[in-house]
Amino acid sequence: MRQVEICFSPELIHLHDLEGKIVVVVDIFRATSTMVAALANGITEIKTFASLEECRDMGSEGYLIAGERNGVTAEGFQLGNSPVAYLNNQYAGQKLAMTTTNGTLAISKSQGAYEILIGAFPNLSATVSYLQSRDQDVLIHCAGWKGRFNLEDSLYAGALAKSLEATHTSEEDGALAMKALFEKEGHNLKGFLSQASHAKRLQNHNIESDIDFCLTLDLYPSVAKVESEVVKWI
Amino acid sequence: MRQVEICFSPELIHLHDLEGKIVVVVDIFRATSTMVAALANGITEIKTFASLEECRDMGSEGYLIAGERNGVTAEGFQLGNSPVAYLNNQYAGQKLAMTTTNGTLAISKSQGAYEILIGAFPNLSATVSYLQSRDQDVLIHCAGWKGRFNLEDSLYAGALAKSLEATHTSEEDGALAMKALFEKEGHNLKGFLSQASHAKRLQNHNIESDIDFCLTLDLYPSVAKVESEVVKWI
Repeated sequence: MRQVEICFSPELIHLHDLEGKIVVVVDIFRATSTMVAALANGITEIKTFASLEECRDMGSEGYLIAGERNGVTAEGFQLGNSPVAYLNNQYAGQKLAMTTTNGTLAISKSQGAYEILIGAFPNLSATVSYLQSRDQDVLIHCAGWKGRFNLEDSLYAGALAKSLEATHTSEEDGALAMKALFEKEGHNLKGFLSQASHAKRLQNHNIESDIDFCLTLDLYPSVAKVESEVVKWI
Repeated sequence: MRQVEICFSPELIHLHDLEGKIVVVVDIFRATSTMVAALANGITEIKTFASLEECRDMGSEGYLIAGERNGVTAEGFQLGNSPVAYLNNQYAGQKLAMTTTNGTLAISKSQGAYEILIGAFPNLSATVSYLQSRDQDVLIHCAGWKGRFNLEDSLYAGALAKSLEATHTSEEDGALAMKALFEKEGHNLKGFLSQASHAKRLQNHNIESDIDFCLTLDLYPSVAKVESEVVKWI
């Protein structure tokens, strides 16, 4: 059996061995959910940036630019970090440059892996099928919140570990814990998450429709993959 | 309501604010369980050390010396990290100097807190009563395993968060997750943990009786507290 393990924060990723593994980067609220929404709605590629400045500069190279800090659209950007903004093929055919608080960092810290995927609930089953078709062990890299454990990324990790159980063992402590937590709370994701501090912070931003989208399973049949620092739909 | 939060690793403790909080340091397999066993069996005080050398030197000052690295007794030490070695008042009346892989680090990184307690299942209810008698918020600091999340420390944290629910809210994501996990798996701690990689490593050291001791609830009515870098029974 292949193995699945979870890293709960980019601050802990140096303690995990990435070599030969497929890393799935997760930032459910909202960076990786937004990437999946954008690609499923016709965005042709996504470049991610750590700094606002670098990302903003891509506007002059014909990119649509999306920038978010602490949950709100950053100054001078066309878009923030809302997945529903991309629905109905709103920006189909365009290239996107994106920077977010936690998600971009997790992607850049995953370099060195065999492959890097982007994980979100709306394409969970597609990601599962892809991982099952490959021989590599899986490491789920949660973006967390300012370096700390967060509940929604961890629950996605548990859902993925659970969905992989026919082919991948969850002996690693984090995977075992989150698989069990998903078994208990997976039927009621939104209710369970609504008790959490991060979800409460998001509710303050009036993004109820984003939260609903981010927790919706299996809308899309494709996988989001990072290649040469560009995220594409495969 | 007071708050309870969980830090899953000493590598993440810098992201938490310790000021004004009571920190409960947890290293279930086996440092904090061993401290509680030792104090409950007549050890008068415990000094903890990061380095083997400093700890070994305490032998010439009349201390019983206990040293463990990677699960086994270190060279030149009278004791390793086995809680059952202290039972039946085996070393009653003596002072203990101790160094362990993960536990000592978590204690030293908890400096700055309002108070520091040592947590273990054998005195869980006593610790709960003590925390409920105080006005401070609680931060549970899991020693983890080589900086990573581990299951037994996290489950203790969940048990403590659950036991405190009449007086302390678990809105913080880690506390919410582990409280729910303990609700699901708390009736079967040993069975659930036996699937985990760290517990499997311990099984290789033939310490079944240690594991049983470490997972036994409420043998002792007192609390272990760190004051001026010395752990005492109060």
